[in-house]
Amino acid sequence: MRTSYAVGVDVGGTRIAVGLVERKGRIVKDIKILTPSAGPFAIVDEVIDLVQEVSAGVQDSEIAGIGVGLPAQIDFLRQSIEFCTNLPLAGIDVRALVMSRIRHQVTLDNDGNLAAFGESRYGAGKGARDFLMLTLGTGVGGGLFVNGEPYRGSRGLGGEIGHMVVQMDGPPCPCGGTGHIESYLGRAALGAKGKEVAASYRGRAILDEAGGDPEEITAEHVVGAALKGDEAAAQILMEAGVILGRALVGIVNLLNPKLIVIGGGIGEACPFMVERAAEVIGEEALAGRRDVHVVPAELGNDAGVLGAAALAFDEYDSREGLHR
Amino acid sequence: MRTSYAVGVDVGGTRIAVGLVERKGRIVKDIKILTPSAGPFAIVDEVIDLVQEVSAGVQDSEIAGIGVGLPAQIDFLRQSIEFCTNLPLAGIDVRALVMSRIRHQVTLDNDGNLAAFGESRYGAGKGARDFLMLTLGTGVGGGLFVNGEPYRGSRGLGGEIGHMVVQMDGPPCPCGGTGHIESYLGRAALGAKGKEVAASYRGRAILDEAGGDPEEITAEHVVGAALKGDEAAAQILMEAGVILGRALVGIVNLLNPKLIVIGGGIGEACPFMVERAAEVIGEEALAGRRDVHVVPAELGNDAGVLGAAALAFDEYDSREGLHR
Repeated sequence: MRTSYAVGVDVGGTRIAVGLVERKGRIVKDIKILTPSAGPFAIVDEVIDLVQEVSAGVQDSEIAGIGVGLPAQIDFLRQSIEFCTNLPLAGIDVRALVMSRIRHQVTLDNDGNLAAFGESRYGAGKGARDFLMLTLGTGVGGGLFVNGEPYRGSRGLGGEIGHMVVQMDGPPCPCGGTGHIESYLGRAALGAKGKEVAASYRGRAILDEAGGDPEEITAEHVVGAALKGDEAAAQILMEAGVILGRALVGIVNLLNPKLIVIGGGIGEACPFMVERAAEVIGEEALAGRRDVHVVPAELGNDAGVLGAAALAFDEYDSREGLHR
Repeated sequence: MRTSYAVGVDVGGTRIAVGLVERKGRIVKDIKILTPSAGPFAIVDEVIDLVQEVSAGVQDSEIAGIGVGLPAQIDFLRQSIEFCTNLPLAGIDVRALVMSRIRHQVTLDNDGNLAAFGESRYGAGKGARDFLMLTLGTGVGGGLFVNGEPYRGSRGLGGEIGHMVVQMDGPPCPCGGTGHIESYLGRAALGAKGKEVAASYRGRAILDEAGGDPEEITAEHVVGAALKGDEAAAQILMEAGVILGRALVGIVNLLNPKLIVIGGGIGEACPFMVERAAEVIGEEALAGRRDVHVVPAELGNDAGVLGAAALAFDEYDSREGLHR
């Protein structure tokens, strides 16, 4: 039987979002709360409570299952959480814990993969067989769609686009590496650049955005000043766009995608940065590959919940032998 | 009916190799000649002659088809040659020209893709569903295997591993780009490095390899001196190994492959360079991905012919509705 709903759960470093989602991608009900800081079991308890809350009144047989996105490296086949930088979930069997109290199948995946999955099913990636999703937020994440399916690599750990090397002697990356895309385009890197520029008169608008305290300057203040027309802030982001473009040139040469979707808080707030990156690809990619479309994501903050629900629908359908 | 043979053609910038290949990958007969320099039609004529020569005495019905590898960017779906740097074949309908005179199906592909295909079917990549092949020769090429199949991207132009950006402000690449893998590891780059080092006393062994003429120094002389124990030459190649490793760190983080196969003339001559690259991956890739095996290719110069034959077998089987 084709079920009507799935529950999508998007666990982030600061926020948990849970939604009851119809097959066509409409979110019927959703709840967002701050992520509990009292340890892993508090997070799991909260997820269980929220799943029950959004699905209250819906018959169990109508629900395909629960998809859960986590800011973690997940071994998809084993459904185990291998590494989790921002939350204390590594090694915790989140799937078994949730399933011990809720009668639905639970499937875990990396949040970047699920944002890509959401965009592929319901958003800017609809219909594309080969595309790349890049999310610019606290970290630089993303997901890869290959031959119409999410690509996870040999251990389910693929898709860490933010940790490709673009400058071998570049600045350190939060992951411990050197000169990665995230070293330049992560929230911390853009905030640091904002502080650096704000130390001179040119950066006054950025400083104003931060209420006059240079220590408080974040990536958001740079974006805010740029959106108000400040040139120094815009320049930081245009330079970031060039770096993004250079990184994407390599990926375009390697993978020849038709479509690149740029999402995440920073990515969605800066269409001009995305446009600059697209220009660089048009200038520097190998001939024949330059027709790639670089577009902003369409689902905003809902991409994670929608992707998690899409995963739950697909897992249900494959268990039941149904085809999409 | 299952045919017994396919003809594999490997057209290189300096040499054409054609082989009659059994399904299990045994080359029954092969011929190698220098690539004619009298224009595209001389090349096509030569290919036709060689195909007829290796398959003389074999019944047409026993031959699955002809696979042709070219040092070119090929739109695989259209079977058209889009760009070809080293031979005058761009825009020439090689497939139609060969098929007008030989009664077999002809399928064209990029030479890097076919080397990967050969290794995946008959060599170091046997059994791996997700792997990457990198060839270090005149250029840096390669091919990507994803979910057990050659991955070509949206226009069939994927797999140009050599043209990923590893240093945004790096040296120019023969393709016109900047700071690509090939900018550091192509034959020209390694030869230039050899000349640079040979200008000082440290590089004497490299100079000796080149017969004492600094202008004549090539990548092969650097490799030759290193294999004879010269430290300065070995250092050039160890540094190249670190760069190769850094480039692969990004690919490992993006694609989480189980296996990386390093081939090509330079790659196969320098196992210590491959080992150094593997060490860098072990140190710098994201945790959980470091178990990737980095191994030398097994098929040497035959990879192209064998891959071309494997492609011809697969195309035949899919036309006939056979499954492997």
